[in-house]
Amino acid sequence: MSTAVRWGITLGVAAIILAIPRPEGIDVAAWRLLAIFAATITGSIVRPLPPAAVVLVGVTATALSGALTPAKALGGYSDPIAWLVFAAMLLSSAVQSTGLGRRIALLFIRAIGQSALGLAYALAGTDTLLAAFLPSNSARAGGIIFPVATSLAEAYDSKPGPTARRLGAYLLFTTYQCDVVACSMFLTGQISNVLSARFGREVAHVDMTYGRWLLGAAVPAVVALLLVPRLLLRWYPPEVTRTPEAPARAAAELVQLGPPSRKEWLTLIIFATVGLTWATAALHKLDYGVVALAGVATMVLLDVISWESVTGDRAAWDVFIWYGGIVRMASALSEAQITTKFAEWSAGLTVGWPWGAALVALALIYVYAHYGFASITAHVSAMFTPFLVVLLAAGAPAALAVAVLAYSANLSASLTHFGTTPAPIYFGAGYVSQRDWWRLGLMLSVVTLAIFGTVGLAWWKVLGWW
Amino acid sequence: MSTAVRWGITLGVAAIILAIPRPEGIDVAAWRLLAIFAATITGSIVRPLPPAAVVLVGVTATALSGALTPAKALGGYSDPIAWLVFAAMLLSSAVQSTGLGRRIALLFIRAIGQSALGLAYALAGTDTLLAAFLPSNSARAGGIIFPVATSLAEAYDSKPGPTARRLGAYLLFTTYQCDVVACSMFLTGQISNVLSARFGREVAHVDMTYGRWLLGAAVPAVVALLLVPRLLLRWYPPEVTRTPEAPARAAAELVQLGPPSRKEWLTLIIFATVGLTWATAALHKLDYGVVALAGVATMVLLDVISWESVTGDRAAWDVFIWYGGIVRMASALSEAQITTKFAEWSAGLTVGWPWGAALVALALIYVYAHYGFASITAHVSAMFTPFLVVLLAAGAPAALAVAVLAYSANLSASLTHFGTTPAPIYFGAGYVSQRDWWRLGLMLSVVTLAIFGTVGLAWWKVLGWW
Repeated sequence: MSTAVRWGITLGVAAIILAIPRPEGIDVAAWRLLAIFAATITGSIVRPLPPAAVVLVGVTATALSGALTPAKALGGYSDPIAWLVFAAMLLSSAVQSTGLGRRIALLFIRAIGQSALGLAYALAGTDTLLAAFLPSNSARAGGIIFPVATSLAEAYDSKPGPTARRLGAYLLFTTYQCDVVACSMFLTGQISNVLSARFGREVAHVDMTYGRWLLGAAVPAVVALLLVPRLLLRWYPPEVTRTPEAPARAAAELVQLGPPSRKEWLTLIIFATVGLTWATAALHKLDYGVVALAGVATMVLLDVISWESVTGDRAAWDVFIWYGGIVRMASALSEAQITTKFAEWSAGLTVGWPWGAALVALALIYVYAHYGFASITAHVSAMFTPFLVVLLAAGAPAALAVAVLAYSANLSASLTHFGTTPAPIYFGAGYVSQRDWWRLGLMLSVVTLAIFGTVGLAWWKVLGWW
Repeated sequence: MSTAVRWGITLGVAAIILAIPRPEGIDVAAWRLLAIFAATITGSIVRPLPPAAVVLVGVTATALSGALTPAKALGGYSDPIAWLVFAAMLLSSAVQSTGLGRRIALLFIRAIGQSALGLAYALAGTDTLLAAFLPSNSARAGGIIFPVATSLAEAYDSKPGPTARRLGAYLLFTTYQCDVVACSMFLTGQISNVLSARFGREVAHVDMTYGRWLLGAAVPAVVALLLVPRLLLRWYPPEVTRTPEAPARAAAELVQLGPPSRKEWLTLIIFATVGLTWATAALHKLDYGVVALAGVATMVLLDVISWESVTGDRAAWDVFIWYGGIVRMASALSEAQITTKFAEWSAGLTVGWPWGAALVALALIYVYAHYGFASITAHVSAMFTPFLVVLLAAGAPAALAVAVLAYSANLSASLTHFGTTPAPIYFGAGYVSQRDWWRLGLMLSVVTLAIFGTVGLAWWKVLGWW
């Protein structure tokens, strides 16, 4: 797709909305805001520019066009959520750069890596453990786990090409597929989960705290994490199934690494503190973002990371610009009654639907729409609020509707080799063909949705969410 | 000074304030905010960490301590002023990276560079022209002018050491001394001028717009810019005074550069547009920051700069963190009546002072306090508001008091080889000894203050500022 076409689509969306007669009760500024918001989301999907650049252009447009005042247009950048994702990206970089993440992976491998299945569990286990406080799945699955996984594959002479299926293809694909489950398990599993939680609170008054998110996800996610490596052992078997040298190699590398450095210990302690503080937020009410910033500040104070690595973390600033812009526009749309109008309108459409049918149908559309998205964040930004509004209008219990959309947004990333940031890294390694990825990704999406739709649904009934 | 001592001083300031009995009418949170603010400013001067890191720690402390809510503590980051400085830094980088800045300098040299004095005017003229819309004096004087100045010196075999005084010492020192005058001439002459303008508006209700700032500064600044190179020709004479080859070399380099590239033209057009829009802000009321962001967005859209160079501009993010934090804390102190209390208290102190005497005394203290500052921003953050409050209490006309503090903060940077960001670059080149710098810097500070105190004062009388 040429850049001109991408711009055409992006601006076309804005033009269409501006051409639609404005509903009664919505003022000009709000309608203009909706057009800019829709174009921004579209642009961050079709990408005439990098998504965060599209957002910055969108933010500037809201201020220049008078859709929002300058202070309101930029309001998202003082929203603690933008600083939460920024700080979380920095903390993630630190776990990677200090080598702490790699050490954890090696410990897992030394403990349970005697077989291909054991290695898969070791890698997925590391990723899941880190997901408890490390929301950047690109740092986690891409930066930390990926190099360990490929070096394991290479140690068994499994390289892209004829030997790919010896071990590497299985390990890499399983790790990725478990990563999307880990993403769904914690509020901090993925950067955009905080967006889902925010939208859930604003639109449906369901407060997905760290604890509530984990409580709801833990049972189905653990079942899925246990099952996925076993299923792939059958559906996508490696030729090497016994890997006795792997734990030995990990042990040797751990000896070589020596005891954890001062920086690793400090990173571990700071992380544990930040994670515990997040997990207990319901008690002390400290803001997630401020806690994360305090973690970053502590790391800078103790020289675990340099100030230059803070100001120079391009990826962190990228998500900061993204989130600050999107969060603000979305809130402003609610304030301008656009969301309410849409709810009224969709309530008319869904009259007479049983909410159960609506939930199943919309959840499926929500998940499989991800074939069109290269980022969970873009997916959540574009679809979470409207789908939630329709579900509520159809009479679905709010807690259930929020949970379904929040968890399944992550699971949907199993489908494609570009479904979320680490996907292109895993695909790019050359072990897994696109055909295998799409075929197995589809099969696994059915599996995880079935688990969340049975075990999860039962568990949420126990929790009283419906 | 060891890091421990730096921390001791920083935290000591907070401890002292917390130990002082809280004045009536000031609540606990406000007093805590004052302690954190004072420690932050102190820390950004004594630097136990890079100044922006100190600010981020300070912001986190205000939120964690309950001095401000998280949203308020981070409020500065949605303040258009923080985005103005961020965008201005990016625009400055573009003028440098596209080569447009260098081309302008070469054009000046070709036109008037036949003598050492002409070269000094050419370099200072380039800097002053750029100061009209390029607030980063490190990009301007450091990034653009400095390489041109040193290559001129080298062309005349003037290098650090015995040949320093042939040409290089004169050119570099004169350029730097003219830069601090250029800084004072425009609202956009220096990053912290927007802070001065902000404090002036909040504390004294004097709105230093782009136009008003320039109107007040133009007459004394132009006199100073004309005089400084001539004075230094006498006080710090170069051995080479005729430089006929310089314009010829510039002409040759311009031929070699060829016509301006597409990026240079676009940069020029975007800059001219941004500058004109700033200059006419009084008419259309568009926010300075939004205009600057629109300039950046346009540059990204037209591929003049890459998105990676936006998210990767460490210096820009550094000032963003600085400004967003300091601006918010300063405003919060006003909101919490701390500034008012200080005004009441100082009104008691200054009873019976003639305001003229107070103005002279305080202006001198304000300027020469800069021996203790390595940044005009730190100077303005720490001293502008309290000095303005005292001057107002003593009965000085608000417009005059704001103008004196706003302009002289920049002039004060003449004193030392670390007075503002480009100073260490110019000093580090090795042409000018510290002894010469301090001696001549002091002499020139007397000259520029005398010009602003006579020509300026007369002009401001004409303008009705007192």
